[in-house]
Amino acid sequence: MRDGPYFCGIDAAMDVVGGKWKALILWELHNSGIRRFGELRRGLPGVSEKVLIQQLRELEQDGIVYRQVYAEVPPRVEYSLTDHGRALNDALGPLGEWGSQRIERIGAERIPHHSG
Amino acid sequence: MRDGPYFCGIDAAMDVVGGKWKALILWELHNSGIRRFGELRRGLPGVSEKVLIQQLRELEQDGIVYRQVYAEVPPRVEYSLTDHGRALNDALGPLGEWGSQRIERIGAERIPHHSG
Repeated sequence: MRDGPYFCGIDAAMDVVGGKWKALILWELHNSGIRRFGELRRGLPGVSEKVLIQQLRELEQDGIVYRQVYAEVPPRVEYSLTDHGRALNDALGPLGEWGSQRIERIGAERIPHHSG
Repeated sequence: MRDGPYFCGIDAAMDVVGGKWKALILWELHNSGIRRFGELRRGLPGVSEKVLIQQLRELEQDGIVYRQVYAEVPPRVEYSLTDHGRALNDALGPLGEWGSQRIERIGAERIPHHSG
């Protein structure tokens, strides 16, 4: 768990959500509600299995992502957002809006998103 | 300049502001208006000169920070936020609020902030 010390709230939030994939994982779980590992990975083209496992583990340790394991054979594992994760995703809204305007402004390419 | 391709607005925004020091640089410039290099560095205890130079250069290239050089001996260099930088700082507000609540929740230590 990342636990400071911190200069300010931004610092603490970035410690949890900083890095390319974490905000995208939040967004994916926010949109889909519940995701199995393979579904999450297909929704994030370019992420490696190792990196996604690590990012999910950190988000779970930080209380952002809830990991539910079902005692089946093979075991089924599902990921979803906790209340804190949902609040964090909401707090990222204005930043996403700013970023969308930036994409327009600089004419950046958008990666087609295959969710579901 | 970081210019994608991107999955979404969060992705693009994180590309600009991700990493520990950039959000803090924004916050520092937002609070102070204009800062010389040495002032910025003193406001961010722990950042190395090399890293701060690199981060400021990237923020300048991304159109977030404005760098004004005065033809004095020795040259005076001042940093401030552009309009896009101010908008980005505003967009970080809710995230900072979430982070402050997290600091309270986990009982993290706060670094005393010597600005000015």
